[in-house]
Amino acid sequence: MLEEDFMSRWMNKIGPESDVVISSRIRLARNLDNICFTNQANNNDLEEILNIINNLLLENNKFNLRLLLLDDFSKTRKKMLVERHLISPDLAKDGRHKAVALSDDETISLMINEEDHLRLQVLYPGLQLQESWDLSDQIDDYLENCIDIAFDEKYGYLTSCPTNVGTGLRASVMIHLPALTMINRVQNIMTAISQLGLAVRGLYGEGTDTVGNLYQISNQVTLGRSEEDIIQNLLEVTHQIIDKERNARSILLKEKELFLKDQIYRAYGTLKYAYKISIQEAMKLISNVRLGIDLGIIKNVDPIILNQLMVIIRPSTLETIKNKDMTLEERDIYRAELIRERFSEEGKDDF
Amino acid sequence: MLEEDFMSRWMNKIGPESDVVISSRIRLARNLDNICFTNQANNNDLEEILNIINNLLLENNKFNLRLLLLDDFSKTRKKMLVERHLISPDLAKDGRHKAVALSDDETISLMINEEDHLRLQVLYPGLQLQESWDLSDQIDDYLENCIDIAFDEKYGYLTSCPTNVGTGLRASVMIHLPALTMINRVQNIMTAISQLGLAVRGLYGEGTDTVGNLYQISNQVTLGRSEEDIIQNLLEVTHQIIDKERNARSILLKEKELFLKDQIYRAYGTLKYAYKISIQEAMKLISNVRLGIDLGIIKNVDPIILNQLMVIIRPSTLETIKNKDMTLEERDIYRAELIRERFSEEGKDDF
Repeated sequence: MLEEDFMSRWMNKIGPESDVVISSRIRLARNLDNICFTNQANNNDLEEILNIINNLLLENNKFNLRLLLLDDFSKTRKKMLVERHLISPDLAKDGRHKAVALSDDETISLMINEEDHLRLQVLYPGLQLQESWDLSDQIDDYLENCIDIAFDEKYGYLTSCPTNVGTGLRASVMIHLPALTMINRVQNIMTAISQLGLAVRGLYGEGTDTVGNLYQISNQVTLGRSEEDIIQNLLEVTHQIIDKERNARSILLKEKELFLKDQIYRAYGTLKYAYKISIQEAMKLISNVRLGIDLGIIKNVDPIILNQLMVIIRPSTLETIKNKDMTLEERDIYRAELIRERFSEEGKDDF
Repeated sequence: MLEEDFMSRWMNKIGPESDVVISSRIRLARNLDNICFTNQANNNDLEEILNIINNLLLENNKFNLRLLLLDDFSKTRKKMLVERHLISPDLAKDGRHKAVALSDDETISLMINEEDHLRLQVLYPGLQLQESWDLSDQIDDYLENCIDIAFDEKYGYLTSCPTNVGTGLRASVMIHLPALTMINRVQNIMTAISQLGLAVRGLYGEGTDTVGNLYQISNQVTLGRSEEDIIQNLLEVTHQIIDKERNARSILLKEKELFLKDQIYRAYGTLKYAYKISIQEAMKLISNVRLGIDLGIIKNVDPIILNQLMVIIRPSTLETIKNKDMTLEERDIYRAELIRERFSEEGKDDF
């Protein structure tokens, strides 16, 4: 099996502001009218929901979605879909009649029988919140035209959890903040962002440590604001953070160029040659190399490779590629092997 | 000035058992008859000693030695000669009429007005104690034929310090023990060696830490044993250590190949790409790469480069090459630069 199968096609593209923003995501929570919410639903309800979507896709598959029944998937394969951000950890848990419908390039993902009956996601590379929203809106219209969605004139879309009621919208960006991390500014900024009604969380590795200087910012409020407002607000904050990160980078480049080059090239050298590497170390080094590319210090490495690596080196993706359960050590060894291969495809190989 | 000027030509050769033995050294302490030992000598005495050797070299320079007057040398340049093992730290200290006579390839070094009037050194790559002794013996004969050497029928050669009386001989080998270090066996072996009347010391970096898994073993006893006995004893012990180190290497290669490869290639990657490196780190990494070459894991790097690097990256040699005093940080940066240059000359360069 090719590793390529384990990456979403959208990862092969670089979006706007990609020096700081890795990806933009819109998620809409929707429920079918007159059927219990998933947590109250019995097997028949869940089956009915799945059938409705299955029939819809058979009759009028406007966005070319492919339905995958998670009952058929191994635990590892489900976790791999989580690591690719195609399904939520919740959907990967045991349970019947769970499914996800994906577009070919995996930009669109429609989860079925998650916390809500339907969770639509649109995921784009770089800063493309507006574009993600536009596509989500089209898909939402298509769904509403074909099936009955639970909607209240006063509250808006009804959802299983009250925090999603209203727009049912969660908009988020994944951002890479190596320079702000180096100058110890991330914590301050994150606190300020939280006060603006936005939530911030790090990307996690094998355990609970934030890895690779990656952070996700998303809206907290779904009720009482329009979708456009929510997206506009997140966009503004994201642009401010982009400015701060770029500013931190140019200061570092001006005042500590040698320190930066040392960090960046050591990271490159280690990724290129290590035979065993933890996800924490790998993500940290990938972050440094990515910074080197974005600063023009490293010229011969395609940033796409790093985007891809950030996904394929994750534990369950490694196990799915290798098609077997692995110990932590086996994963560390296989992870190093995949990384070495990528880097020797890229630069000239020394051995 | 070329860096090549800062290396002894003998360093460009690889000697026998060079996977473990870096170099072999013979040192003979000799004093002129009827002149006070150096520590008691006045300026006239010291001048006379220097003149005697100067005249000898002008009249009958059988071994083509070139006399360098240390009074003319800067402190840094003198320390550089110490780092190349051509003069002792003692000779580098302030003091008049100090000198060293060197052969072209710097295999032979004759120090004048050190602790003894004359200290002859022969330094060969690899395990060549017998060869070093044979050459030392010839030079010793030549000196004795031309000048009056202090010799007592009962005690042998008379020396300034009683620990050198007798043969005046110090034989030593510089050995590289990365595998025994990795499996924590060095301390035991060193204790055993000390009990055999041999002295062991590590090679030091900028401070007092042992660096690069390099150790020097030398005889302690100079009195009551023949030169042949002393050399034979050191040779035997050295062969035993070579066996132990090679054994440790094959065990590691068999049982921990991946761990070894990881250590070795990470070292290679860091040396190749770092922009700032301390002597301690550099020596440790060079030791790992050298082990990789000796185990056949790294194939495209010439071990000679590492022998050379071990010398040119030392503090005073760096300052002499750059021809200026440097801060610790400046040295760390320049050291990394020299190492990168060597490695990119060697392998294919990536950038």
